Amino acid sequence: MRPLDATAERRARRQLSEARAAIDPVLRTAVSGLTEPLDLMAGYHFGWCDPEGTAVTGVQGKALRPALTFAAATACGGDPGKSVHAAAAVELLHNFSLVHDDVMDCDAFRHGRPTVWRVWGETTATLLGDALQAVALGALCDGVPETVTAEAVIRLTRATVDLCHGQYADCDFETRAAVTVDEYLGMAAGKTGALLGCACALGALCAGADERVVSAMHTFGAELGLVFQLVDDFIDIWGDPEVTGKPAYSDLIHRKQSFPVVCALESGTAAGRELARLYRTRHPLTTARAARAAELVERAGGKQRTLRRASTALEAAFAALPGDLVSDDLTALAQLVAHRDH
Amino acid sequence: MRPLDATAERRARRQLSEARAAIDPVLRTAVSGLTEPLDLMAGYHFGWCDPEGTAVTGVQGKALRPALTFAAATACGGDPGKSVHAAAAVELLHNFSLVHDDVMDCDAFRHGRPTVWRVWGETTATLLGDALQAVALGALCDGVPETVTAEAVIRLTRATVDLCHGQYADCDFETRAAVTVDEYLGMAAGKTGALLGCACALGALCAGADERVVSAMHTFGAELGLVFQLVDDFIDIWGDPEVTGKPAYSDLIHRKQSFPVVCALESGTAAGRELARLYRTRHPLTTARAARAAELVERAGGKQRTLRRASTALEAAFAALPGDLVSDDLTALAQLVAHRDH
Repeated sequence: MRPLDATAERRARRQLSEARAAIDPVLRTAVSGLTEPLDLMAGYHFGWCDPEGTAVTGVQGKALRPALTFAAATACGGDPGKSVHAAAAVELLHNFSLVHDDVMDCDAFRHGRPTVWRVWGETTATLLGDALQAVALGALCDGVPETVTAEAVIRLTRATVDLCHGQYADCDFETRAAVTVDEYLGMAAGKTGALLGCACALGALCAGADERVVSAMHTFGAELGLVFQLVDDFIDIWGDPEVTGKPAYSDLIHRKQSFPVVCALESGTAAGRELARLYRTRHPLTTARAARAAELVERAGGKQRTLRRASTALEAAFAALPGDLVSDDLTALAQLVAHRDH
Repeated sequence: MRPLDATAERRARRQLSEARAAIDPVLRTAVSGLTEPLDLMAGYHFGWCDPEGTAVTGVQGKALRPALTFAAATACGGDPGKSVHAAAAVELLHNFSLVHDDVMDCDAFRHGRPTVWRVWGETTATLLGDALQAVALGALCDGVPETVTAEAVIRLTRATVDLCHGQYADCDFETRAAVTVDEYLGMAAGKTGALLGCACALGALCAGADERVVSAMHTFGAELGLVFQLVDDFIDIWGDPEVTGKPAYSDLIHRKQSFPVVCALESGTAAGRELARLYRTRHPLTTARAARAAELVERAGGKQRTLRRASTALEAAFAALPGDLVSDDLTALAQLVAHRDH
């Protein structure tokens, strides 16, 4: 992979903050259609307020998906203002899945704060997720051009179904001793690829692009989603906890079938076999054992294979785009995804 | 309320079975977009197969909502064939909410079979619900006229948000000693009224009706939804368990704040006070105590007030409709809802 140069990084970070600012009013209007306590819960989840409703300036999501929608629209020669509802819809949909995933995965913290289900309980959190899915589709239809409304909704609902399948596979993996690389890639395509693909496709669609371009943009985003997921897996093991803000080896401690682990387990090496023995226990691993697991994953080739697969996916993303669509904005965002350290 | 005459009942039952037959292929196509195991789970939930996928001819839902969509479309002079996707979408959306409600309410049986979460677990059931919500919106956009797509989606997503609020209120009531009649009516408007209203509105919309008519149809359905919920509460206490297929006094046993109970508790009568004492315990009531509670509810006027309120809602439903829209089909369905004994 090409190293991330400072200009590309500045450009990408500017896109993220501009996207966040652009969708903010649409998100707030959409959420205001909820009533108590779902509106408050949504505001808390989005980092706008504390659980009592007092405004805070907390940590918010990266807004990568809306930034991709805008960048895709611009690359297709469209006015990014016309895709603001699509960008907001994708972000709302993403947050529906986060709220539900936190319940399913029993994740207690997000951006350093207790997750919604920890504050309001599982039932109410499930209802917030349900409502956010609806609000996402409503926001989409409230603003995209009439001629593409049906296709936009169909694309976003397909991405939602794929997300559900990806999350199902991810949960299912935790009950299994072994997962193949293909199974992992299918899971990642659903869990991360589908919505990044949809984010890009909707940008193109709102810009009036033809079916071929919309589909190419979808592939670009889907491959970039795979890069995103692989980098996520990578930094869990080899990232700096000071930078990621997450505890070290979280995936290994929970015996997750992340890509480096899947590769190591099927490597046929002595290190892979030792890792399999470590993973065979039912309990979470201690930090010391997780550190040993990390060493074994690397020795079994899991680190190198993850970097190579991410690199292949990044190339596939750009190979999917007709040359005239490879904009500086899309390139900068893709580089940021590939090189992010948190 | 007018008694249900045999002609109206036959007409209504024919509408239900025709609606079921009309949407069946759309439902099956929509569900076929899911992959394993969500497709199997959906088939099981809809009564098409057993948990292993073997086809069965089980008990299916009543298809009241799609029948209302078709009847509304016909009353507006439209071709009911043009509203088949809307009718299927409403039914899919209804089933998303059933699957999630069963998880939240820990309901173990539906139509005499174990609920989806009992067979596949809570997480996978939640994912099926999530996917069904998406599939509902996708099916809607796959078939409604382009000019009304955005409004149809916005109406269905608003109904979904209302459903979530209704379910939230219903769960919240279980933690409270008292609920006002207004709070109950707000809950029922969300939990039942919103989607019946939407079912009727979408029928009108697909028939090309103007905003005023669409809105009148929504009110008709929403009021009919209230009738539906009140009758539901009524037959839990005074219905024949042999006919309803549900255990007697299920609501009372679980100390639910059903409408007759809410009325009795706020009646200021001695019977109401005794009921409050019975309800104050944390545990489910024994059948004998529930039978006593039923007696107290009736003595405190809860039975009469429920019948009167249902009658008022039925009148309000028809009062909302311009005279030329009061068709025999809509009347028959409304009568069936008001007089159903299961």
